[in-house]
Amino acid sequence: MSSENVVDAAPHPAWLPDGALAAVGRRRVALRTPELSGPAAGIPSRGPDNSPEVLATLRAEVEHATTAHGGDVVAPDASPDLLLALSPELSADGFRCVRDGGRVTVTAATATALLHGWFHVVRRGEAAFTGPDADERHAPATALRMLNQWDNVDVHPYMGQVERGYAGGSIFYDAGVVRADLSRVTEYARLLASIGIDRVAINNVNVHAREARLLTDDLAETARVAAALRPYGVRTHLAVSFASPMTLGGLSTADPLDDAVRAWWSDAADRVWAAIPDFGGFLVKADSEGQPGPFAYGRDHADGANLLAEAVAPHGGVVHWRAFVYNHTQDWRDRTTDRARAAYDHFAPLDGRFAENVIVQVKHGPLDFQTREAVSPVLAAMPRTRVALELQVTQEYTGQQQHVCYLAPWWRENLGFQPWGAGSGGDGVTVADVVAGRGPDAAPAVAAAGGGGIAAVSNVGDDRFWTGHPLAQANLYAYGRLTWDPRLDPAEILDEWISLTFAGPDGAVDPQVRQTLHAVMDDSWRTYESYTAPLGVGFMVSPLRAHYGPDVDGYEYSKWGTYHFADRDGVGVDRTRATGTGFTGQYPAPWRDVYESLETCPDELLLFFYHVPYSHVLRGGTTVIQHIYDTHFAGVEQVRATIAAWEALDGRIAADVDTRVRERLAEQLRSATEWRDQLNTYFFRKSGVPDVHGRTIY
Amino acid sequence: MSSENVVDAAPHPAWLPDGALAAVGRRRVALRTPELSGPAAGIPSRGPDNSPEVLATLRAEVEHATTAHGGDVVAPDASPDLLLALSPELSADGFRCVRDGGRVTVTAATATALLHGWFHVVRRGEAAFTGPDADERHAPATALRMLNQWDNVDVHPYMGQVERGYAGGSIFYDAGVVRADLSRVTEYARLLASIGIDRVAINNVNVHAREARLLTDDLAETARVAAALRPYGVRTHLAVSFASPMTLGGLSTADPLDDAVRAWWSDAADRVWAAIPDFGGFLVKADSEGQPGPFAYGRDHADGANLLAEAVAPHGGVVHWRAFVYNHTQDWRDRTTDRARAAYDHFAPLDGRFAENVIVQVKHGPLDFQTREAVSPVLAAMPRTRVALELQVTQEYTGQQQHVCYLAPWWRENLGFQPWGAGSGGDGVTVADVVAGRGPDAAPAVAAAGGGGIAAVSNVGDDRFWTGHPLAQANLYAYGRLTWDPRLDPAEILDEWISLTFAGPDGAVDPQVRQTLHAVMDDSWRTYESYTAPLGVGFMVSPLRAHYGPDVDGYEYSKWGTYHFADRDGVGVDRTRATGTGFTGQYPAPWRDVYESLETCPDELLLFFYHVPYSHVLRGGTTVIQHIYDTHFAGVEQVRATIAAWEALDGRIAADVDTRVRERLAEQLRSATEWRDQLNTYFFRKSGVPDVHGRTIY
Repeated sequence: MSSENVVDAAPHPAWLPDGALAAVGRRRVALRTPELSGPAAGIPSRGPDNSPEVLATLRAEVEHATTAHGGDVVAPDASPDLLLALSPELSADGFRCVRDGGRVTVTAATATALLHGWFHVVRRGEAAFTGPDADERHAPATALRMLNQWDNVDVHPYMGQVERGYAGGSIFYDAGVVRADLSRVTEYARLLASIGIDRVAINNVNVHAREARLLTDDLAETARVAAALRPYGVRTHLAVSFASPMTLGGLSTADPLDDAVRAWWSDAADRVWAAIPDFGGFLVKADSEGQPGPFAYGRDHADGANLLAEAVAPHGGVVHWRAFVYNHTQDWRDRTTDRARAAYDHFAPLDGRFAENVIVQVKHGPLDFQTREAVSPVLAAMPRTRVALELQVTQEYTGQQQHVCYLAPWWRENLGFQPWGAGSGGDGVTVADVVAGRGPDAAPAVAAAGGGGIAAVSNVGDDRFWTGHPLAQANLYAYGRLTWDPRLDPAEILDEWISLTFAGPDGAVDPQVRQTLHAVMDDSWRTYESYTAPLGVGFMVSPLRAHYGPDVDGYEYSKWGTYHFADRDGVGVDRTRATGTGFTGQYPAPWRDVYESLETCPDELLLFFYHVPYSHVLRGGTTVIQHIYDTHFAGVEQVRATIAAWEALDGRIAADVDTRVRERLAEQLRSATEWRDQLNTYFFRKSGVPDVHGRTIY
Repeated sequence: MSSENVVDAAPHPAWLPDGALAAVGRRRVALRTPELSGPAAGIPSRGPDNSPEVLATLRAEVEHATTAHGGDVVAPDASPDLLLALSPELSADGFRCVRDGGRVTVTAATATALLHGWFHVVRRGEAAFTGPDADERHAPATALRMLNQWDNVDVHPYMGQVERGYAGGSIFYDAGVVRADLSRVTEYARLLASIGIDRVAINNVNVHAREARLLTDDLAETARVAAALRPYGVRTHLAVSFASPMTLGGLSTADPLDDAVRAWWSDAADRVWAAIPDFGGFLVKADSEGQPGPFAYGRDHADGANLLAEAVAPHGGVVHWRAFVYNHTQDWRDRTTDRARAAYDHFAPLDGRFAENVIVQVKHGPLDFQTREAVSPVLAAMPRTRVALELQVTQEYTGQQQHVCYLAPWWRENLGFQPWGAGSGGDGVTVADVVAGRGPDAAPAVAAAGGGGIAAVSNVGDDRFWTGHPLAQANLYAYGRLTWDPRLDPAEILDEWISLTFAGPDGAVDPQVRQTLHAVMDDSWRTYESYTAPLGVGFMVSPLRAHYGPDVDGYEYSKWGTYHFADRDGVGVDRTRATGTGFTGQYPAPWRDVYESLETCPDELLLFFYHVPYSHVLRGGTTVIQHIYDTHFAGVEQVRATIAAWEALDGRIAADVDTRVRERLAEQLRSATEWRDQLNTYFFRKSGVPDVHGRTIY
């Protein structure tokens, strides 16, 4: 992958080119902070979110912007166009933004919140100053807005430097060591701060031997990474191995109820916080896909999580404990075991047993980051637990950053899903509400903590464009924005991203570029869905090529529990209570009934919940088999249209971006065509039903 | 793989335990050779097959055997039980064996041939001395009896130390270097000499950068390997890269018609023979699966091969040029391209253009070492070319030395195939005859050279048992014996191997062990066939697991050109002239007609030549679909019977062998069950036809 990197060139600025700073940079900006204007201004208490380094960063940002665009840094009493002020009486998170006669004042209680306020004004651009008078308070939907790096320190024989990484090597590590030069990590932190992300778990949840040492022997290196993230108010978390007391500590057990094990974790946590006072906490993948966990000792996930929670509690730390637990050595012959059921079966019974500083981190769907799958019922099953939603920004199953696939619409659907329905009973509570601690029957401690927040697997690497495909930057951008406000409209987020990323030196964006990017990206997730696995059935990806490209039967006879059961008559997985695996029963009403009935189950999830004959008629009037043909032909045509639209931009896009995007679009067309032909051929060979339009099926 | 090796233990003796030497070792043995008995005995000319080192080896073998078993080395005139004598008036290959009143005299023209004669007596055991008087001449069917090591010097990222190696690391190389201690290579040479093999190409035909240097910079290392093989009369060949003049020589071209290129190869050959006077020649995989070749310069395979032939000719060297050339980036949608046709299409038109010291090395089948496939028509298409048959002892497609699969019956079928039929027209000429230079219309030079001989990919590694599965040793043994005499009966070869390998200290074999090994091994290839791909259709192996285990559609939508085209109605590849790819037309009569007719095409190759409905009735009266079910159920039952037979040997087999065999049998049962269930389920889902016996299909 490194062959793609342009080593000598500076990284692409992503959505923060200097042009994006034009509106603020042209103006007179003042800061009023204790360090800058003296004790009389009032000194907010120091803390993880209120570091002098962040204030210094903010000042440097302001100076950079005004220098670049001819504005000026002025005194707070010199009638600035923009005043940024610390104001300890506000709540800790978020900021207030007042516009009065075209002059803007941003106040916040902490340095990090004020930095977020600054980037808010940057994002608004001219509109920040030109609207009618206003007094807005902006606060994030949840306190924990996190990215998980699946970066390995040692290059993994199969997974490489970054597991499920599609953007070159790691910006953190290189071939077994933490990078000497971590300046790019700080650049990354800047991008994250600009979208409100304030936590990063810096290593892969699959914690191999080398990575495990970040917790102990290599703590000084971990502290260097934390120091590189800190200037932008981004706090460091570590993924740790549950077996650490044995593998690192030399104990004979990792039993969570063993006193020596508890002491070991307590000491380890003490040392981490001594080295990194604003450290965030631990992230754990336990008893999952071969990772060690409490099951080895006859303990459960609550025992395991609470062990670590006890160790980090004195420091105000949290433990993210992943709910991605299932039998990964399943027998395909066994139709009674349903991987979709696994997380709920494991975790729902433990509700109420987790410590207050444990966060159970739940993948959005019950399978594994598919292009389309149901929403995980675990999210609605644990009112007495802080539950986090886990998304995947890296495009493991969605084109691996070779395909354009703007994921915000898909995340938005998940965040906006109403587990208890929209009616009077459910009150329209959404997944976003649940993970903010506002689910029905949320325990007081859960509500008080603001829930578990949102986490996602990052998509960046040391690729010049950060994300391989330049347009995949938009996914990282949108993820951050949705963690701050899950109600945002994906098209508006994209518009915002375009305004920043494609800003010319004067801050303006070519209207044709804007229009084309919407045409290329707005519906790209649905386009991707159209030419891949149909109707929510999932997978059909190639195990040989690490989930890239089609292989309809690739997982059909495997141990992974992801099957489609296609035969000559039909396809899909019966997950009903009546005749299937009973997975539908894991949902509260109304979904337990909606999904249980073929009449009400949404078409896009039809094959996720039902095994139906190819002749089954969808709501649109076409049969399942004809739907497969139609969507696969249409998907490729949509890719062709995308390419035509992009090519019409000729000359309006920076050459390096244009070249990379064209390369990727060509690969997308090749791959989409392969998907179309393999899927259509597979189902034609099985069903024997010809395409009613007589198109070519091989 | 190295975890399986018992590092401290001596390698298993394979078929040469001391017990196997009992019959000769108990007797009085004399040698009459120039070195031993003086000039009066007549000194044969020195040469590659007549080295003083081999005579020293022979003397050491005799001393070892007689010391171990109480016999004696005596003078030739002291009425020895066995006299081994050089006799220059005999032909160069082979030996004469005379038994007269229970005393045996072996004479040969060269040291290597005399060594082969010694091992002949060893193999015969008591029978060598106790039969009626006899005067036999034994000569190998072909002068070139070769093994190809697919060993890499550098560990390859995917293929490991030995490409398609299932027996640990390489006995030649270890992690980038030629092993310092090559004593095991000499032990290997001893095993080879005992079965008549006299040539080894010591590196992988896929010649990577590190391996290429064996020809030049690392020639001294190559010479060390040659020195380790030489004591047993085994000569060294090298696999070379066609691009060597560029990659090693710094030339700007490897064009075979370029004078500088010709000079480079000539110089390279001169240096090799200067370092290794008995060097054999070069082995080349060109324009195949990404290896460089003459196509890049608009030249053909004859141009390429003749280039190297010219360089090695002054030294009496040969060039083995592989015919395994096909389009490995095929489009699965394109049904007109047939990989089975490729070797013939490339090579048959070149017949007559190859130099006399070029050997075109042809895989036995037109695809790739399948468990069942047709015989390659190339073998019958090049009378003016020295053609070698290439077999695969390493069990790439036949269970990877996890499954018992005694391959001699399959090789014997290929060697005994009569390309021109058995009738008066074809005169019963076999493939074995063709590769011995005795095909119809063989050019005089081809006949004079004795054809191209036989080559095979070795199955040994640094595993204690040499071959991973101890019973896989029999394949190496049988390969050697068949190269010497292709008419040998596989069961008799196996019996010979049992007599040697399982000989007790007194040379006797437990009759129950003998009986059980026949029960376990005689039909094991057909058993393996029964539970894998049906009726000659081939492949259906897992690309993810490097050809181990089932994946029916694993290669169905790939670039490799190996498809089965199964749909809801039928399965198989139409290779007829009438309606298919025309491959049948590459055969001479009668096969071009036999295969062209569904009425005469043998059932075991039915799906290799035809796409038939599942309801097609085989000669035995069952349908294709029922045949699939029946053979797959029966195959697993046969494996169970094999295990029961082996377990009944309890206590009669050395513990280390027994343990390893039991481990492998357990894995074979697991894997065979997986094959059965995946194949049956796949075809049931496609066909919808139930098993008439109502057995479980998932």
